[in-house]
Amino acid sequence: MPRRIIIIGGVAGGMSAATRLRRLDESAIITVFEQGAYTGFANCGIPYALGKVIEHDEELILRTSNDFKQRFNIDVHLRAEVINIDRAKRSVSVRTEGEDRTHQFVYDKLILAQGAEAFRPPCAGAELDNIATMQTIADLQKVHDLLSDRNAKHVCVMGAGFIGIEVAENLRKLGLEVSIVEYGSHAFPPIDGEMAEILHSELRDNGIQLFLNDSAQKIDKSRVILSSGLVLPADLVILAAGVRARTRLAKQAGLVLGATGVSVNNHMQTSDPDIYAVGDMVETQNNILEKPTMLALAGPANRQGRMAADHICGKTVNYRGNVGTSVCQVFGLTLGFVGLSTQALRQLGHDPLSITVHPPDHAGYFPGSQNMTIRLAFRKETGYIMGAQIIGKGGVDKRIDVLATAMQFGSTVFDLEHLELGYAPPYGSAKDAVNMAGFVASNVLRGGCKIVQAEQLTTEKLDKLQVVDVRSPEEFARGHLHQAVNLPLNNLREQLATLDGSRPTLVYCQVGYRGYLAYCILRQFGFDVVNLDGGFKTVVQGGYQSLRS
Amino acid sequence: MPRRIIIIGGVAGGMSAATRLRRLDESAIITVFEQGAYTGFANCGIPYALGKVIEHDEELILRTSNDFKQRFNIDVHLRAEVINIDRAKRSVSVRTEGEDRTHQFVYDKLILAQGAEAFRPPCAGAELDNIATMQTIADLQKVHDLLSDRNAKHVCVMGAGFIGIEVAENLRKLGLEVSIVEYGSHAFPPIDGEMAEILHSELRDNGIQLFLNDSAQKIDKSRVILSSGLVLPADLVILAAGVRARTRLAKQAGLVLGATGVSVNNHMQTSDPDIYAVGDMVETQNNILEKPTMLALAGPANRQGRMAADHICGKTVNYRGNVGTSVCQVFGLTLGFVGLSTQALRQLGHDPLSITVHPPDHAGYFPGSQNMTIRLAFRKETGYIMGAQIIGKGGVDKRIDVLATAMQFGSTVFDLEHLELGYAPPYGSAKDAVNMAGFVASNVLRGGCKIVQAEQLTTEKLDKLQVVDVRSPEEFARGHLHQAVNLPLNNLREQLATLDGSRPTLVYCQVGYRGYLAYCILRQFGFDVVNLDGGFKTVVQGGYQSLRS
Repeated sequence: MPRRIIIIGGVAGGMSAATRLRRLDESAIITVFEQGAYTGFANCGIPYALGKVIEHDEELILRTSNDFKQRFNIDVHLRAEVINIDRAKRSVSVRTEGEDRTHQFVYDKLILAQGAEAFRPPCAGAELDNIATMQTIADLQKVHDLLSDRNAKHVCVMGAGFIGIEVAENLRKLGLEVSIVEYGSHAFPPIDGEMAEILHSELRDNGIQLFLNDSAQKIDKSRVILSSGLVLPADLVILAAGVRARTRLAKQAGLVLGATGVSVNNHMQTSDPDIYAVGDMVETQNNILEKPTMLALAGPANRQGRMAADHICGKTVNYRGNVGTSVCQVFGLTLGFVGLSTQALRQLGHDPLSITVHPPDHAGYFPGSQNMTIRLAFRKETGYIMGAQIIGKGGVDKRIDVLATAMQFGSTVFDLEHLELGYAPPYGSAKDAVNMAGFVASNVLRGGCKIVQAEQLTTEKLDKLQVVDVRSPEEFARGHLHQAVNLPLNNLREQLATLDGSRPTLVYCQVGYRGYLAYCILRQFGFDVVNLDGGFKTVVQGGYQSLRS
Repeated sequence: MPRRIIIIGGVAGGMSAATRLRRLDESAIITVFEQGAYTGFANCGIPYALGKVIEHDEELILRTSNDFKQRFNIDVHLRAEVINIDRAKRSVSVRTEGEDRTHQFVYDKLILAQGAEAFRPPCAGAELDNIATMQTIADLQKVHDLLSDRNAKHVCVMGAGFIGIEVAENLRKLGLEVSIVEYGSHAFPPIDGEMAEILHSELRDNGIQLFLNDSAQKIDKSRVILSSGLVLPADLVILAAGVRARTRLAKQAGLVLGATGVSVNNHMQTSDPDIYAVGDMVETQNNILEKPTMLALAGPANRQGRMAADHICGKTVNYRGNVGTSVCQVFGLTLGFVGLSTQALRQLGHDPLSITVHPPDHAGYFPGSQNMTIRLAFRKETGYIMGAQIIGKGGVDKRIDVLATAMQFGSTVFDLEHLELGYAPPYGSAKDAVNMAGFVASNVLRGGCKIVQAEQLTTEKLDKLQVVDVRSPEEFARGHLHQAVNLPLNNLREQLATLDGSRPTLVYCQVGYRGYLAYCILRQFGFDVVNLDGGFKTVVQGGYQSLRS
């Protein structure tokens, strides 16, 4: 008897499972039910199709149901909603759009790949037709229509996560007036606030209005009234305030759910061994948190689908959990992120160390070199890396992938010192950006340098310190820390007597390196000294206005 | 008593050691002897300064001896040659250019960082003044002068390794007629021939003449006569035929040498524990070969210098050996390479498996997506990765660094399946290029797909096979394998009866994916079938003309 496999959901995880099943089992009867009008489309491309970076919406449709039939002998039913799972009978009830009655389909194995749905913030007017989400081709077409029908000028995006930012950027490039409203205290809430500040500047520099610590209280046809009382003009509102796993059907079927999605084992099996679940709707082990969480990313969804198919066909490839590697374009910048931020770790009760460096993407003497900012969080006991955040113009996607790869092998910051990465002037440096982060973090852990974070400082604390700026007089003149005296590094040894060796001392430079050199000198002359992590650049980028004078 | 440390060699490894020493020990007396006229210059940038990509030669000088004195209190003596080491007295004899007598300097610890010198192929006329190497600022200035003095039109580059190719490209961009003569059978001899073929095309497309399996027999003022009898016009000859560790001084001092350089332990100590050696002049463990080899790369040199300094100051950071990660621009292409090639592994008696894939650098539906070619070599027993080669337009440097990182953690191809890499449409794919390589290699190892390499085929072998091209008729018409019949994948199931199930069968498509799908179908219908690794694209790129018809 051929295997009968039913898959609910015809996009990333579902279709990865379907095609892998077919490769492994030519005789299986594979049936996919997709609630929407399209299968096999690239939902990650939707913001770029909105902005016409991807010119035609059709380019997002990688495969049609006809393609799946012809090439893979897979039946994809579109506009087909599974309304019930009968686990005892191993059957599903399906209702196709426009039909009244339901049909029953029997399975040997069932794969749930229903994804996640956009969170709809509870606010008055949330049902209006000028509000859209950005998950499907239908959503995209609706927004195209709204923009042209209304001759829209102002758009308000609710939420400053990956999708919200991508949508805002693309709308802005269409020439619209775009505002973003974020409930959290900064854009990309999973990253640290001082890193997000760099992105805030980039967004504002590109004409986006950003409203933080705020949310919609009421939406009407032409404006959004915020909880703060502010009123934003809005011909169109895009909801991008996060997603929630689609668990209704699984719950109805009595499958075990976790706090954020359907529970699965490392073969992607739910509590019913004949039912698998993959993608945004499940909880999988977060290897940094060491607990299951929902993760709405395409890569893991695709791999999970493949593994569910493998397991159904008797192969054992175990899902290894995830570290949450992600990357996002923010106008001229790239944000890379993996693991957890320092702030998130602290909120969860961890006590990580962190360091910040601003290394160049490639050799400074080769044209086009640009500094990026890397922030690492790691265990103070072992150096085990718990998170990395990178923002810069070039080379960010490379470094976040290198760090993510290292982290998946359980890397410590000491391992980063040793990493042998490709170097030629157009691509990197003899000491790569990742090595530099490793050197600084290892120095801190081995006791070779004591650092202080900008976030730990206040003007009161600075008042009590001997604050030494070791940059050039020109750099000092352009802005410096409260209470700082300027003593350029190259003069430090000979002018050491001008400093008070009995006072706790803070040294800093622009990015941290000269500060570290000064630290080494002062410490060896008996000073009680700390270096400012990431230098004055971190103070400026991180928005620590009060520390400056 | 302050430590007296002498360093011989004032570039990469030597100056990394010197500055690290100063950071760790403010009181040490650090003296550097550099034979050349410059310290702290970026030798990797020399080819680009030649081509004026880096506009002014001075941009290569990152730090002067004055900078080292001011900032680090390090004495760098330029044009100072160490002519002898007296280990019993712990002293070195130094002769400064223009002076007759030598001076003695005493050390507590000595660091050798003398680098490597260009190999000078033995040929008549090799002492002429129109021949230059490309290692130092002096070399660079000599070539500038030769080019302008002679109003040079034709340049001949001896050697098609990293430096030779970079120099050739930069000379070509100056408008010169450039030929490259390579003793080996292909450019970049450490990589596989079929990968090098891609680069040969790129070089020729950019107007470079390439002479393989050849060498200079005689050089005169205006031409090079090759062993093959060919005569190349050459106003200028650049020697870039590899480098040899500078071991004369170490040998004279009685230090233990290996086959390719000075022997060191993992603290970078030579056979004399008071003498360290770092950089291009030493042999360090190649973690793939599992034996010591010389490696002329800036990254390892810098890290080794740092570790020698650490060890002198009582810190124990062990050098972990290397995997030979490298990257190089070749006009519009990038070559990334780590570990060993399949061919090199075979020559060394290994029996690796290898796979070739042609994945896109980022999502195909996002503008600018370009395919790269990845070749992996791995152990057939375990999947342990022994080498990776990548050539493509974009995203190559990222993938070689990801693979190099994975390899440094002892990665298998199975690990690559699981790697969670950043995905957004401008940067990658839900199944990244590295994942794709992992999927294909893992399929092969797990018995999910039998492949054959183009290099294993001959027309005689094809004559004996049922050769099935599963591409479209249009693709087939543009060129196909000898003896192939065209049966597009989407028609395969229904036209299966047109194939002979009793004949050994080879399937292929353009890049390997559709061939794999066809393989899965045919195998399950009882065919004895193999899929052509990397598809027809590998045949075309790899220069397997004889297999085509």
